[in-house]
Amino acid sequence: MEVTFELGYALDTFYFLMCGALVMWMAAGFAMLEAGMVRAKNTTEILTKNIALFAIACTMYMICGYGLMYGGDDFSLALAGITGDGATGVGEDAATYAPSADFFFQVVFVATAMSIVSGAVAERMKLWAFLTFAVVMTGIIYPMEGAWTWGGEDVFGLYNLADLGFADFAGSGIVHMAGASAALAGVLVLGPRSGKYTAGGKINAIPGANLPLATLGTFILWMGWFGFNGGSVLATASVESANAVAVVFMNTNAAAAGGTIAALLLARVLFKKADLTMALNGALAGLVAITAEPSTPTPLQATLFGALGGMLVVLSIVWLDKRKIDDPVGAISVHGVVGLLGLVLVPVTNSEVALTGQLAGAATIFAWVFVTSMLVWLAIKALLGIRVSAEEEFEGVDASECGLEAYPDFAGSRK
Amino acid sequence: MEVTFELGYALDTFYFLMCGALVMWMAAGFAMLEAGMVRAKNTTEILTKNIALFAIACTMYMICGYGLMYGGDDFSLALAGITGDGATGVGEDAATYAPSADFFFQVVFVATAMSIVSGAVAERMKLWAFLTFAVVMTGIIYPMEGAWTWGGEDVFGLYNLADLGFADFAGSGIVHMAGASAALAGVLVLGPRSGKYTAGGKINAIPGANLPLATLGTFILWMGWFGFNGGSVLATASVESANAVAVVFMNTNAAAAGGTIAALLLARVLFKKADLTMALNGALAGLVAITAEPSTPTPLQATLFGALGGMLVVLSIVWLDKRKIDDPVGAISVHGVVGLLGLVLVPVTNSEVALTGQLAGAATIFAWVFVTSMLVWLAIKALLGIRVSAEEEFEGVDASECGLEAYPDFAGSRK
Amino acid sequence: MEVTFELGYALDTFYFLMCGALVMWMAAGFAMLEAGMVRAKNTTEILTKNIALFAIACTMYMICGYGLMYGGDDFSLALAGITGDGATGVGEDAATYAPSADFFFQVVFVATAMSIVSGAVAERMKLWAFLTFAVVMTGIIYPMEGAWTWGGEDVFGLYNLADLGFADFAGSGIVHMAGASAALAGVLVLGPRSGKYTAGGKINAIPGANLPLATLGTFILWMGWFGFNGGSVLATASVESANAVAVVFMNTNAAAAGGTIAALLLARVLFKKADLTMALNGALAGLVAITAEPSTPTPLQATLFGALGGMLVVLSIVWLDKRKIDDPVGAISVHGVVGLLGLVLVPVTNSEVALTGQLAGAATIFAWVFVTSMLVWLAIKALLGIRVSAEEEFEGVDASECGLEAYPDFAGSRK
Repeated sequence: MEVTFELGYALDTFYFLMCGALVMWMAAGFAMLEAGMVRAKNTTEILTKNIALFAIACTMYMICGYGLMYGGDDFSLALAGITGDGATGVGEDAATYAPSADFFFQVVFVATAMSIVSGAVAERMKLWAFLTFAVVMTGIIYPMEGAWTWGGEDVFGLYNLADLGFADFAGSGIVHMAGASAALAGVLVLGPRSGKYTAGGKINAIPGANLPLATLGTFILWMGWFGFNGGSVLATASVESANAVAVVFMNTNAAAAGGTIAALLLARVLFKKADLTMALNGALAGLVAITAEPSTPTPLQATLFGALGGMLVVLSIVWLDKRKIDDPVGAISVHGVVGLLGLVLVPVTNSEVALTGQLAGAATIFAWVFVTSMLVWLAIKALLGIRVSAEEEFEGVDASECGLEAYPDFAGSRK
Repeated sequence: MEVTFELGYALDTFYFLMCGALVMWMAAGFAMLEAGMVRAKNTTEILTKNIALFAIACTMYMICGYGLMYGGDDFSLALAGITGDGATGVGEDAATYAPSADFFFQVVFVATAMSIVSGAVAERMKLWAFLTFAVVMTGIIYPMEGAWTWGGEDVFGLYNLADLGFADFAGSGIVHMAGASAALAGVLVLGPRSGKYTAGGKINAIPGANLPLATLGTFILWMGWFGFNGGSVLATASVESANAVAVVFMNTNAAAAGGTIAALLLARVLFKKADLTMALNGALAGLVAITAEPSTPTPLQATLFGALGGMLVVLSIVWLDKRKIDDPVGAISVHGVVGLLGLVLVPVTNSEVALTGQLAGAATIFAWVFVTSMLVWLAIKALLGIRVSAEEEFEGVDASECGLEAYPDFAGSRK
Repeated sequence: MEVTFELGYALDTFYFLMCGALVMWMAAGFAMLEAGMVRAKNTTEILTKNIALFAIACTMYMICGYGLMYGGDDFSLALAGITGDGATGVGEDAATYAPSADFFFQVVFVATAMSIVSGAVAERMKLWAFLTFAVVMTGIIYPMEGAWTWGGEDVFGLYNLADLGFADFAGSGIVHMAGASAALAGVLVLGPRSGKYTAGGKINAIPGANLPLATLGTFILWMGWFGFNGGSVLATASVESANAVAVVFMNTNAAAAGGTIAALLLARVLFKKADLTMALNGALAGLVAITAEPSTPTPLQATLFGALGGMLVVLSIVWLDKRKIDDPVGAISVHGVVGLLGLVLVPVTNSEVALTGQLAGAATIFAWVFVTSMLVWLAIKALLGIRVSAEEEFEGVDASECGLEAYPDFAGSRK
C-alpha cells in the first residue's frame, strides 16, 4: 500500500477512536446528570442502572445489534467482522479505516440511546425490569430502526427512508428521539412518582438532590457531543472532510450555547428566577437540535437553532407536567420533542433534504420504537413486575434494590 | 492539492479540535472548583453563572470578539469567516488547517478568561449583574487586548508589544492575568463577604462546602491545560512542531506537579497542616506559571517554575486576605499574581523575549482590563445594582437568585 | 526528511500525547473513586494524597525513574533525553515520534501504579508516611521492575523475562499487580481500620460516603483506560498499527462491560442485591484483566475475560475480608488478584507467550515489589510512624492531618 493511504487510514481510525472515547464519556454524563436530578434515596439505583445499561448495550450490540443494523442479509459475516482481527469484516473491500474503530464508534451510540431512557423512568421502576428492557432495546429495537436509516435498508421491505429524502446526520431522531420514544412508553406504563401530582391538579416539584452533579453531567455531555457529532462526518483525512469536522465542532458548541442562554432567559420570564435545571436542559436541547444537521448551518444559524431548542424544552417540560407525564430529568422533552425539532430544521440549511422525508423518518422511528417498547414494557410488567411497591418507593429504591445508601454519612435525607 | 498537504491540513485541524475540546472541558473544571469552594447555600448560583458565562462567551466572541481580535480593519470579513462554510475567512490565503477549527480553539480561550472572574466575586454578586459584565468582557474587553498581543495590532496606534519584545505563548497574561484583573476590579467594587473580616482585624475562614468537587475541578483543569498550552503551538504536522507540542505537554505536566508539591510543603510549614486547598491552588499556579512559555524550559526548569508559582500563590492568598481583598477561590492570586510571574519568567529560558517587553505587556493588559472593567462594574452598580441584600447574602443567593437549593436533601446547611 | 515521514512522526506523537492525557485523567478517576469509598471524615486526606502522589510520581520519575527504567547503563544520557529539547535523548537514533511524548506517556503510568496504593491504606495511614513511600515507589521500586520487563533488562543479571516468554502488553502485572503488591505490604504493616473486624469474627461493612463520586471515578478510569491500553501499541501511523489500536479500544471496552455484568450478577446471587460497589469493581476488574493482552482476543473473548475478572474480584474481596486484610476500596483484589489473572490469560489468545514465562514474571514482580515495599513501610513505621492515633482515627484523619473538613456544611457526619 502507498504510505499516504496508510497515513490517511491511520488518521481516520484515530479520529474515530477519539470521537468514540468522547461518546463513551457521555455515559458518565448521563449518570451524573440523572444522579443529580433524583432524590438522595434513589441515587445508588440510578447509578447502578447507568453503568449496567452501558455494559449491556456494549455486549448486546456486539452479539446481535451491529449485525442487524449494518450486516444486511449477511448477518453472520457482520458478526464475524467484529469478532475478527479488526482488519476484516463489514466494509472490508473499501476500508479506509479500521473496522473495529467503526464498531467502537457505533457501539457507544447505542448506549447513548439507552441512557436517555433511564432518567425518565427514575425513582420508581424496578432495576431488573429496566435492565431486561435494556437487553431488547440495545439488541433489537434500536438496531432495527438504525438499519432503516443509517443502514440504508428498506422499512419492512415497503419503503426506503433515504429515497424519501430523509437525513439525520448524527442522530437527533435515530438516537435521541428513539431513546425518548422508548422512555415515553415506559413512563406511560409505569405512571408518575407518588406525590408528584396530587388531588386538585397540583403539581409538586421534586427537586434533584445534587445540582453540582447535574451540572457536571451536562458539561460532560457537552464535551462528549463533539465526538458524537464530529465523528459522524465519518472521515477527516482530507481538506474537505477536515473542514466539515471543524464546522461540526464549531456549530455543536454554538448550538449548546444558544440553548443555554435561551432557556435561561425564558425561564427567567416565566418563573422569575434563574433556573439552573432549565439552563442545563437548554444546553442539552441545543445539542439535540443541531445533531440532525451540524454541518450546513452557519454558526449564527446554529446558535439560533440551539436557542429554539432551548425555548422548546422549557415549554415542553411544563406541558408534559400538565399532562401528568412524569419525567424526573426532562429526558422526553430534551431528546424527544427537541429531537423532532432537529429533524424538521434540517431542510432549512440543507437543500438536499426534504421536509416530507424528515416527517416520514420521524414517524417511522417513533412508531417502531414506541410500539415495540410498549409491548416489551407490558410484557415485563406481566412477567417480572415493573414498579416497586409504594413502601419501597417511599423509603427509596436504594434500600430495596441495591441495599446501599448513596450518601450514608449525611443525615436528614428527605423522604 | 497534494495528498500530503491534505493529510497535514487534516492532522493540524484534528489537533486543534481535540485541544479545543480539552479547553472547553476547563469550563467544567472552573465550575466544579468554584462549586466546591463556596458554601452550600451559594452553590446553585455559581453553577448557573459558570454555564451561562460559557454560553455568553461563545456567542459574544462569535458576534464581535473574534473579529475585533483577529480581523484587523476588515472586521466584517472576519465575521464572514466564522459564519462561512469553514473553508473561507480569516487566513484563507494561507490556510493550513480549517478556519473553523481556529475559531473553535480561540473561542474556548475567551470562556477561560471569563471563568476566572466568577470565582472571585462569588457568594455576594447579583447573577444578572455578573452576566451583563460577561457580555462586555467577552465581546470587547478581552478581544481588544487580544488584538494587541496575539492579534499583532498596535496599542491604540501608539506602540506595538511584539516590537517591544513581548511574548506570551498560551496566555499567562493575555488570558489568566486579564481574567484576574477584571476580577480584582469587581471585588473592589463589590467588597468582601459579610462576616469575612470582623472588627479587630480578625480574618474568618469560610471553608468550601465540597472539597471532592474542588479537587475534581483541579484535575479537570490540569487535563484541559494540555489542550490550552499544547494547542498554542498552533501546528503539529511536522517533526519540529510535533516535538514542540510534546515538550509543551511534558512541561505543562511538570509545572503542575512542581506547584502542587511546593504549595503543599509551604502550607505545611506555615500552617502545620497538609492544606488541600493550597495544594489545589498550587497545581493551578504551576500551570499558570508555565503558560507564558512552556516550550523552551527543560522539564526540571518547568518543575521549578511551577514550584515558584506554587509558593507565590500561598503567600499571595495570605497577603490579599490581610488587605481585606476577599476572593473566595483565590482566583486573583492564582491567575493574576502568578500570571505576572509567568510573564516575567519567559526571558529566563527564551532569549528572544525581553523582560522590558514582558513588563510593558503586563502593564498594558492590566491597565486596559482593570480600568475598563472597573468602569463597567461601576456602571452596572449604578444601573442594575451589583450586590445582593444583606439578608439574601445571609440566606444564600441560591434562594434569592435561582430559587433552587443545590443540595435540598441534606439537612444542616451552615448559614 | 520526507514529508510522509514527518506526517507519520507527527501522528504517532499526537497519538501518544492524547493517550497520555487520558492516562493522566485516570489520576482523577482514582481520586474520585477513593473519595467516594471512604467515610466523609477521611475524604480531604484521601484527596490530598491523590493529588500529591501524582505530583510526586511525575517529579521522581523525571529525576530518576525514567532513567532507571529505560536508560540502561547510560543513566545520565537518559536523563539528558528528558531534560533536552524533546528531539534528543533516549531512542534518538531511530525516533519515529517525539521522545518527550514517550516520557509523557510513561510518566502517567507510574502515577497509576502509585494511585492503586492510596485506596488500600485509606482511613488510617499518616499522610506524610504515605507520601514518603510514594517517593521511593515511583523513583525506584516501580522503575526497577519496569526495567526488567518493558525495559528488557536482565533481573539482577540472572535471567531475562522476555527470554522466558513473558509479555504484559499494557501492564496487568507491571503496573496493576505491582501497585497492589505495594498496597498489600502496606496493609499488612498497618493493620485494619478500628471497628472493621470485631470480636467473634464479625466483619462490619463500612460504606463509602459518596457513591456518585465512586461511580464517576469508575467512568473516568474506564475512559482513561482507552489511552492506557490503546497507547501501549506504541504506534498508530500505519494500517497495521491503526488496526491494532482499534482492536485494543474495542476489546478494552468489551472487557469492562463483561466485568460489570458478571460482578453485578454474581453479587445478586450471593448478596440478593444489585451491589453498585461490586459492579464498579467488576468494571475495573474487567479492565485490569484485559490489560495484559488486549490486541489478540476477539471482542467476545475480551468480554468473557472481563467477566472472569468481574467474578474473581467479588470472590477475592469476600475472601480477603475473611482473612482480615482490610482494603477499603478493594484495590488489592481489583489490581492484584485480577492483575495476575490477566497475565495468566495471555497465552490463551497469544501463542507467542508462555504460561511459565507469565508465572515467572508475576513472581518476579510480586517478590520485588512486595519485599522492597515491606522494607520501606517498616522503615517508615520505625522512623516517622505509619498509623494515626486511635483518637485521630475516630475523629477522622481530615481534622488531624489536613485541618479541613471535606463537607463542612453538611450535618451528621457518621463517626
